[in-house]
Amino acid sequence: MSEDIDAQRIDATRTVRAFAPGSVGNIGVGFDLLGHSIEGVRDVAIVRRIDEPQVRITAIRGDVPGADTLPLQAERNTAGQALIALRRKLGLAHGFELELEKGIPLGSGLGGSAASCVAALVAANALLDAPLPREALYEFALDGESVSSGSRHGDNVAPMLLGGVVMATATRMIALHVPAWLHAVVVHPDQMLETRRARAVLADPYPLSLVVEQNAHLALFLTGLQRGDAVLLREGLHDLLVEPRRAPLIPGFLEAKAAALDHGALGASISGAGPSTFAWFTSRGHAEAAAPAMQAAFAAAGYGSRAYVTPVAGPKAKVMGRA
Amino acid sequence: MSEDIDAQRIDATRTVRAFAPGSVGNIGVGFDLLGHSIEGVRDVAIVRRIDEPQVRITAIRGDVPGADTLPLQAERNTAGQALIALRRKLGLAHGFELELEKGIPLGSGLGGSAASCVAALVAANALLDAPLPREALYEFALDGESVSSGSRHGDNVAPMLLGGVVMATATRMIALHVPAWLHAVVVHPDQMLETRRARAVLADPYPLSLVVEQNAHLALFLTGLQRGDAVLLREGLHDLLVEPRRAPLIPGFLEAKAAALDHGALGASISGAGPSTFAWFTSRGHAEAAAPAMQAAFAAAGYGSRAYVTPVAGPKAKVMGRA
Repeated sequence: MSEDIDAQRIDATRTVRAFAPGSVGNIGVGFDLLGHSIEGVRDVAIVRRIDEPQVRITAIRGDVPGADTLPLQAERNTAGQALIALRRKLGLAHGFELELEKGIPLGSGLGGSAASCVAALVAANALLDAPLPREALYEFALDGESVSSGSRHGDNVAPMLLGGVVMATATRMIALHVPAWLHAVVVHPDQMLETRRARAVLADPYPLSLVVEQNAHLALFLTGLQRGDAVLLREGLHDLLVEPRRAPLIPGFLEAKAAALDHGALGASISGAGPSTFAWFTSRGHAEAAAPAMQAAFAAAGYGSRAYVTPVAGPKAKVMGRA
Repeated sequence: MSEDIDAQRIDATRTVRAFAPGSVGNIGVGFDLLGHSIEGVRDVAIVRRIDEPQVRITAIRGDVPGADTLPLQAERNTAGQALIALRRKLGLAHGFELELEKGIPLGSGLGGSAASCVAALVAANALLDAPLPREALYEFALDGESVSSGSRHGDNVAPMLLGGVVMATATRMIALHVPAWLHAVVVHPDQMLETRRARAVLADPYPLSLVVEQNAHLALFLTGLQRGDAVLLREGLHDLLVEPRRAPLIPGFLEAKAAALDHGALGASISGAGPSTFAWFTSRGHAEAAAPAMQAAFAAAGYGSRAYVTPVAGPKAKVMGRA
């Protein structure tokens, strides 16, 4: 994919900076399966190749609340754990020193822990004697993510690694076709929603009839993406399983979703475990017109917010240069 | 789609024969959503346009067991009910007289009731003053099917109407791309499995984790079909929801599936509500080699069977001529 860039190793220096974008996890109908990267918010990793056979984190900076609460202990940090897994699998003699600059708010549902992990991997990969293709970084990204979520879900790390909409299974990433006109609004309201609480409401099982209805939505959604067919996307982008249970945990969500649909959204739902809320539109213009209305809905519920307008075919993580 | 043929109305006569093929409902990962038509087994309808404003069934023939037990009363018969719905919706002044020649065994899981319904509709459509496109026949086919199944599932009628693999939602049919090399074996063992019993085992709900795993399979399956990628199809064609609960109701199924996989099948599962068992292969040659092994597995369990080898891009229902 981007071996062209990853392979730009600089012999003159042993330090590389890389960024990874935020992402919309789940995309409503693809719980723990689908995600897409977004413009406007990202984490940066600065990785230095060191002779000592270890991974150490020297600093976590960033003006997002809570950045200073993240663990510096490598094995307890998603980015640290990813580099530990990389070293172990490749049997590297050298180690890595890592700094993180957090740009993605913690607990936003925009994939902050995944982005640190992917940015660190992309930077470290560029420092290898034989850099790996993006696909090969996936397993290490899953190793890192599992520190944060307790399980291996690729719906955030995969779109960060490949860009755009990606299907992430336990073993592979598949980048999907995305029409260029497709744009998203992602609104992050100033709320905290614990992932644990967001997961707890999913404990009760689902009747087959509802699963079948959702399967139809997923199939319509995937076919709509592949054909660039807005009618199919509109029919498909409608989550019946997770959103109904999580919506009550996010004050203003239903109103923000309604505002998006009023402004012509193809569909809207919760990004990752929330509270961020996303909506898809057939053009950037439609998205830009809807964003203030979605923010106004959260404001009416008492919450300030930030809004991002982005192509659904968002960016992928990239090396930015050397320090 | 086949308006070319449907529109071949013959003024000289008011009787049309049409056939509809059998089908594999569900295709494992697409319960009540996906199906594909098959060669080798079909129902035929002979429809006569009559002046009386009614639908009547004059005969149901066929050498399949139980054909003589099917109801001649139009509103209790899938084909009869479909024509009643057609007359009502279009406000037709004339009626239809219908004969059915059953070729698809009852209770086989090969879509017999759906085929009678679709064959009757395709024949009746050719007798209309202004024949409808195939897409417009879908709702009447669902009306007919509901007489048999008690609910509106299009996973059998849709592939019969359009041919090949079709996604059937409550309101629309979407024909999917099917690679020409893809072939299926469908084995019908001499067992009776009541649809009611096959449905009863599906009553208990499913944990989200299993639903998510199945969603990944469905997404891999659909992407594999669209890209003609056998690796993705092999990963995707694996049902975790319905097959594990129904397999114990079909003696020999697990052994027949194992025989198919031993012969290189991409995957295998239950057709419709069973007991017919299907497997997909990358060529006709592979399918032909596997068919006897699948039949031997049922024979070892004490059941004779018939096997059909067919392109997955199977035929669609067609007018055969006039009586």
